[in-house]
Amino acid sequence: MPTSKRPKILIIGTGAVGGFYGGKLARAGYHVSTLCRSDYEIVKSKGIKVKSSWGDFHYRPVEVIKDITEYKGCPDYVIVTLKALPEIDIPALIRPVISSSTAIVLIQNGIEIETAIQENFPNNDLISGLAFICVSRIKPGQIHHQDYGRLALGLYPKGESDSVKFLAEILNTSGVTCTISKDIIRERWKKLLWNASFNTISVLTRADTKMILENENTAELVFKIMQEIQTVAAASGHKIDVSILHKHINDTRKMKPYRTSMLLDCETGKEMEIEVILGNAILIARKHSIEVTNITCLYGLLTLINNRINQASA
Amino acid sequence: MPTSKRPKILIIGTGAVGGFYGGKLARAGYHVSTLCRSDYEIVKSKGIKVKSSWGDFHYRPVEVIKDITEYKGCPDYVIVTLKALPEIDIPALIRPVISSSTAIVLIQNGIEIETAIQENFPNNDLISGLAFICVSRIKPGQIHHQDYGRLALGLYPKGESDSVKFLAEILNTSGVTCTISKDIIRERWKKLLWNASFNTISVLTRADTKMILENENTAELVFKIMQEIQTVAAASGHKIDVSILHKHINDTRKMKPYRTSMLLDCETGKEMEIEVILGNAILIARKHSIEVTNITCLYGLLTLINNRINQASA
Repeated sequence: MPTSKRPKILIIGTGAVGGFYGGKLARAGYHVSTLCRSDYEIVKSKGIKVKSSWGDFHYRPVEVIKDITEYKGCPDYVIVTLKALPEIDIPALIRPVISSSTAIVLIQNGIEIETAIQENFPNNDLISGLAFICVSRIKPGQIHHQDYGRLALGLYPKGESDSVKFLAEILNTSGVTCTISKDIIRERWKKLLWNASFNTISVLTRADTKMILENENTAELVFKIMQEIQTVAAASGHKIDVSILHKHINDTRKMKPYRTSMLLDCETGKEMEIEVILGNAILIARKHSIEVTNITCLYGLLTLINNRINQASA
Repeated sequence: MPTSKRPKILIIGTGAVGGFYGGKLARAGYHVSTLCRSDYEIVKSKGIKVKSSWGDFHYRPVEVIKDITEYKGCPDYVIVTLKALPEIDIPALIRPVISSSTAIVLIQNGIEIETAIQENFPNNDLISGLAFICVSRIKPGQIHHQDYGRLALGLYPKGESDSVKFLAEILNTSGVTCTISKDIIRERWKKLLWNASFNTISVLTRADTKMILENENTAELVFKIMQEIQTVAAASGHKIDVSILHKHINDTRKMKPYRTSMLLDCETGKEMEIEVILGNAILIARKHSIEVTNITCLYGLLTLINNRINQASA
């Protein structure tokens, strides 16, 4: 639990999400450092530029490091905003900076992303977070925040803690709407309804959200996918009312046409987050003998695309 | 029924399939004319060049016409090799040249493609045909025949006729292996097993047959799609043994990696044959209350891609 009013924050992964929220905190005066890999040189020398619908800004992290062992001292918060990919061993990556008082924060998509962290750091506060934001990395050190931006944080697996409350408070102070959920896993399943349907369909059809909803067949498919996720969520103890499914779809209808982050990943030859979006839900379904034909079909198609992306970039 | 040893043959649609088989017949000395639309000028002035694994050749049809009413006399065979698309009204297109003795031949993919012809020309011999061939149109007037080439012909809906036997005979004489099936609709369902799975998956993943079968998830999906088609076929009276499904997959494993014709259509912005490959099977499934979740999922995705192709080319 952080003890300082100016906690030391280390952002792991300075893509769109980490770059944006780290920037909001840094601009508000908080002590934000960042671990960069591909963008290290440019961020070290020039900082990060953010084009944002909330107002453009630029910032320089206190420390910009390429290797975790370069970090000076102990962070109060380690905020992981890396994509949730199976080959990234987050516990190994962050271990060198984790002390008993470090709160570990995961702002990532998908489900079952917390397990490995909890097993490796059972005594640390583990905060699970969801970003509701349209943001993308335009090029190294440059981020474009198009719309939305709310964060939901909660102690994993349930409840709350001083570390959650304090982080939410400084984020709100920094201009980021941040809500606390005492049942963050349920929130995760609710967000999965959207990602499992719109992200996947958008990749396979190369279409934006408007096109998907205007075609009767894909609009129907969106709903069927959401129903499968809803069923799996219920089996794992997280009941979600059908009204949430309809709300997701109606809210999406009102959005500007949106090309999902998974579609952008696919188009730019970056590995997609298939396992945490679909694979883990399919495993849970199997454990409960639930048939999830649609998401298994989509999963099959997307793993082939992902394999080819990985082969091309190998 | 043709009465001449040198029957008049009119090919409708001079794409890859029509151009190839028409060419084989023409080179063997048969009286072959062709209705061309987009390739009219080049075919009229230069004929058709065929690069073929059986030996390259060039030919000039007896008549090259742009409008069906230009055709002189009555054809003994009208061979339709157009893509099977909902907006093409084949009965209206061919009506001006159909006499009581004309045999109408459909060499097209999919199922339920014969219904409109039979309703409009109930007294003509209707021959349903399937081409097992890897062939593509490289550019106007130029065709590339990569592999295979067998034709299966049969009287619709069942049985045989002199017109079928005679056409098979002249094709065999021309160097095309042509078999006669007394149950051609069953053959159509068997071919659909392949098209409904490999064509569709190839479009959605942009992958060739080898990639599809090397990925365990898509290989499994191929089999599940084939099982759905098998169930619908059985409900409509055409039992297909599961060994045929395995044979399709094993034969495809042995093939050179193949990019399906539907994938080529998609990549070149041409409308795909979604309705006759999936849509009609789904309608039959619905009539028999059979659940076909996988093909309905694929159908949804592909109709969205097709809509966008059609909008782009409108």
